[in-house]
Amino acid sequence: MNNVLAVDIGGTHFRVGLFDEQGRRLLVHDGDTDRAAGREWMLGQLAAHCRELLANTDAPVKACGVSFGGPVDFSRRRVTSLHAPGWEGFELGKWFEQTLGIPCRLDNDANAGALGEFHFGAGRAAKLLVYVTISTGLGSGVVCDGKLLRGRDGMAGELGHIPVSEFGARCSCGARGCLETFCSGGALETRMREWAERRPDRGGRVVELSGGHHITAEGVMRAAAEGDAAAAHVVRETTRWLAHGLLMVIRILNPDLIVLGGGVAQSGAPLLDNLRSFLEELASRPITYSTEIVTAALGSYSALYGAAALGLEVT
Amino acid sequence: MNNVLAVDIGGTHFRVGLFDEQGRRLLVHDGDTDRAAGREWMLGQLAAHCRELLANTDAPVKACGVSFGGPVDFSRRRVTSLHAPGWEGFELGKWFEQTLGIPCRLDNDANAGALGEFHFGAGRAAKLLVYVTISTGLGSGVVCDGKLLRGRDGMAGELGHIPVSEFGARCSCGARGCLETFCSGGALETRMREWAERRPDRGGRVVELSGGHHITAEGVMRAAAEGDAAAAHVVRETTRWLAHGLLMVIRILNPDLIVLGGGVAQSGAPLLDNLRSFLEELASRPITYSTEIVTAALGSYSALYGAAALGLEVT
Repeated sequence: MNNVLAVDIGGTHFRVGLFDEQGRRLLVHDGDTDRAAGREWMLGQLAAHCRELLANTDAPVKACGVSFGGPVDFSRRRVTSLHAPGWEGFELGKWFEQTLGIPCRLDNDANAGALGEFHFGAGRAAKLLVYVTISTGLGSGVVCDGKLLRGRDGMAGELGHIPVSEFGARCSCGARGCLETFCSGGALETRMREWAERRPDRGGRVVELSGGHHITAEGVMRAAAEGDAAAAHVVRETTRWLAHGLLMVIRILNPDLIVLGGGVAQSGAPLLDNLRSFLEELASRPITYSTEIVTAALGSYSALYGAAALGLEVT
Repeated sequence: MNNVLAVDIGGTHFRVGLFDEQGRRLLVHDGDTDRAAGREWMLGQLAAHCRELLANTDAPVKACGVSFGGPVDFSRRRVTSLHAPGWEGFELGKWFEQTLGIPCRLDNDANAGALGEFHFGAGRAAKLLVYVTISTGLGSGVVCDGKLLRGRDGMAGELGHIPVSEFGARCSCGARGCLETFCSGGALETRMREWAERRPDRGGRVVELSGGHHITAEGVMRAAAEGDAAAAHVVRETTRWLAHGLLMVIRILNPDLIVLGGGVAQSGAPLLDNLRSFLEELASRPITYSTEIVTAALGSYSALYGAAALGLEVT
């Protein structure tokens, strides 16, 4: 009986878990990421929790799979984060191997989520599966015939960085009008904030539902679900762009299944309600497709299960 | 020694060829398609030329591969043409089998072109290859690990029918603002015609180079190559949209290779000259890619070689 360690490092949460050969979760530690505390703090947390899990199991742990919530250079096993300072170029795969003494496989959270849903979630047995994750940003992962399609430079699945408007805002990646600037948690917050600035009489409910301080994507989604007109409008706009993004995937790949994951998709009903009607509006009669669109079966654990699958690939 | 028949049915030309097991062309007949003469005329031509080739070879011919210049239902082996009347729903695979008495495999010209370039052209040994064909319309085919990625409904590769503008023209597929309405031979002709109507003092050279009667895509490309300002502008616009389309493919798949085929890409220097600078303009520093972009090595024969490869799959 060989177990694997699975690690999911996100901007909001981190998770460390022990999984068995069948990908069953044996034990998981959930923690909150302290972004301001930086890389060394995070590594300290990970080392402590991994060692604790290892100390509490008698079965051998053969490998470690890691999902990182940002760009990863898969072949060089290092992080190429654009967002979080301190991570750029860090050889995270090597660090885990040196810290834990077991082989490690590292990938970004969208690829890990795709693998997790394929092996253990909504996508079992799908020949061609695309996982689209909508959280702070927008990413995707493609699983074809059971294997991640990483592309020549490990840059496949960068759906969030397709330019969809010449007149759009500057994206975190430096380009203009990327899909992610229209469809993501960050986009929801920006749009809602713009709205609230133009119409200070509106938006109060969103701030309340966001926790009282500043607007969060979750607050926007919750206000839209309650029927707040401004929030509902902002969510509808974002959904329209999501329909465009999914249609790109459908036209190019015509997958069996698209799985929607990430925090925004999960807080979901207002986002998903309109998706089908937007897709209907964009439809072309002769180019029919039966690609199914579902939400992630593993909820916020898609990437952690995917990390386990990465670890199991090594053993 | 087993040979195969290969057939390429296009809107302008048709070709019937005999290929050996290594995909070498033994004999090919080239003909002009008489669109007005309709389906029965075309079938008569195909039957006659296939029988002639079969009568002139001693080696057994084991199968037939067919490329059709329009939508094909691969699994049901029939044509679902939107453009040419008389072909819709026609069971072309069955017709070939009954006419020639050998098994037949049928696919659309973009998929056939992808297979042709993969096996015998620019894409040998590419792990992930995307073939983009720009002729009257715009299509694409994806070859992953040596196999065509057809998608759940055989609708993968429909790059031409991704909506890129809400304010665009109605496409032949019924939707609005498809990439094909901005980037294709048809789009070049429409844009040039619009220009000539607004500025009757311009466009004369294009008409001359088109053969003197009406504007053709080839005429536009030739006038642009000669330095005609109006034609060069129209070609530049189309190239910009091509850059957008290729970037969608690169972001989602990050393929090893993109092969540009079809009549418009071949008449090509003015189209391709600007492509790299447009892609550069749309680049994002952190999301680098080394996907190569080349023109089809088999020229106007990509689909015919692909038809041979389809036939060889059967044997």
